[in-house]
Amino acid sequence: MSFTFKAIGVIHSCYPDKFGVPRQPGLVSHAEGRLELFAPYNRPEAVRGLEAFSHLWISFVFHQCMEGNERLMVRPPRLGGNRKVGVFASRSTHRPNPLGLSVVRLEAVEQQGSAMSLRLSGLDLVDQTPVLDIKPYLSYSDSIPDARSGYVDQAMFQLLPVVFTDQAQQQCAAIEPQQPGLRQLIHDVVAQDPRPAYLARSDHRGGSERQFVLRLYHYEIRWQIQAEPSGVWAEVLAVQPE
Amino acid sequence: MSFTFKAIGVIHSCYPDKFGVPRQPGLVSHAEGRLELFAPYNRPEAVRGLEAFSHLWISFVFHQCMEGNERLMVRPPRLGGNRKVGVFASRSTHRPNPLGLSVVRLEAVEQQGSAMSLRLSGLDLVDQTPVLDIKPYLSYSDSIPDARSGYVDQAMFQLLPVVFTDQAQQQCAAIEPQQPGLRQLIHDVVAQDPRPAYLARSDHRGGSERQFVLRLYHYEIRWQIQAEPSGVWAEVLAVQPE
Repeated sequence: MSFTFKAIGVIHSCYPDKFGVPRQPGLVSHAEGRLELFAPYNRPEAVRGLEAFSHLWISFVFHQCMEGNERLMVRPPRLGGNRKVGVFASRSTHRPNPLGLSVVRLEAVEQQGSAMSLRLSGLDLVDQTPVLDIKPYLSYSDSIPDARSGYVDQAMFQLLPVVFTDQAQQQCAAIEPQQPGLRQLIHDVVAQDPRPAYLARSDHRGGSERQFVLRLYHYEIRWQIQAEPSGVWAEVLAVQPE
Repeated sequence: MSFTFKAIGVIHSCYPDKFGVPRQPGLVSHAEGRLELFAPYNRPEAVRGLEAFSHLWISFVFHQCMEGNERLMVRPPRLGGNRKVGVFASRSTHRPNPLGLSVVRLEAVEQQGSAMSLRLSGLDLVDQTPVLDIKPYLSYSDSIPDARSGYVDQAMFQLLPVVFTDQAQQQCAAIEPQQPGLRQLIHDVVAQDPRPAYLARSDHRGGSERQFVLRLYHYEIRWQIQAEPSGVWAEVLAVQPE
């Protein structure tokens, strides 16, 4: 039993790569992006009434994870990468069908000539992600505040403190006129510690000289972890056009 | 850009037809069902850790609505069927890609020999629905109690009072040993007034002799609307095996 679907649109986001993308939507609220609708859906009729909803579900394809995947178990980063759970007990991007689901905030419906877009925030989607469906978020059925969320409840959200070097600070300031909010976006993305879980574990113990390169829009951000007995933080070293 | 997915499982539910299926999950909490996993996913590993979650997302195919659908607008029942909205501003089953999304309660993970099933409640899925994906419900990201839900907030949930005739009452009592909870299920499904919106509008004004036949499991339930100046209610007339 197989089913074929076609993309109804595509995501334009600040994340050119998987590295840095928040592990769930909403974690980096400043991450803005756009869903561009393809013909024949690039018409106001297709989204009429949508502006009355504050949030949307986006069904999309993990297009960077299209290789066949029959693995039954995965290692969620939330468990430090050292415990396996069933693929259906995780939101891993590597799943039998590479289908993703993301709730985002709808900021505006925008039309420019024949181009029709939804402006979104709280995005956790890689640039160029193909979109299969859009549904309104219905709080009366979708919001279950007291749902029990297994291992995810227990794993704390440990945000890293983030400092910018003087150089990075100045580079941000120079770029911000063309890219408003970049500094805040860098801060929020780095604070959630996008390193692979196995590195995060080891570095938290001793720090590391290793530098990481994160891409946001068309900027390259170099940063590293600093660790001292008093604590661990992230230091943003440089922010430059690619 | 098109993508092909295969079913990883199938739903077994009390709803053989679309008629009677709740318009959103959770509305009829007694609606139980089962998600049967197909090979190679019919193994405990694939769902390990899932029992720690109270709720799941099911991504499925509206297999009864597979005909090509390029309509840009639909008439949601919640608007009485007389106002159109964009297809992406609705949860209509008729959409460009017939993809459905449903949050259900996980009651148990069950294994019998090589058969692996998830026992579910609060289901709004037709029997034999193909399932493409299962994801755990994460309250910290998925639950947005204060989301603004457009026209859905304004449209009240008007539940109908439901009475059973003596005959229907006795028939239910005779069946319940084999089908526990049937009476409550019938009550809850009829109370949400599964009639098409255009009929519900006209009947509320004057009542009607028209009888409706609802199927639940392999039983046929006949019922009708009664309307008097004092109010409108649903009367269950007969409950019989098909």
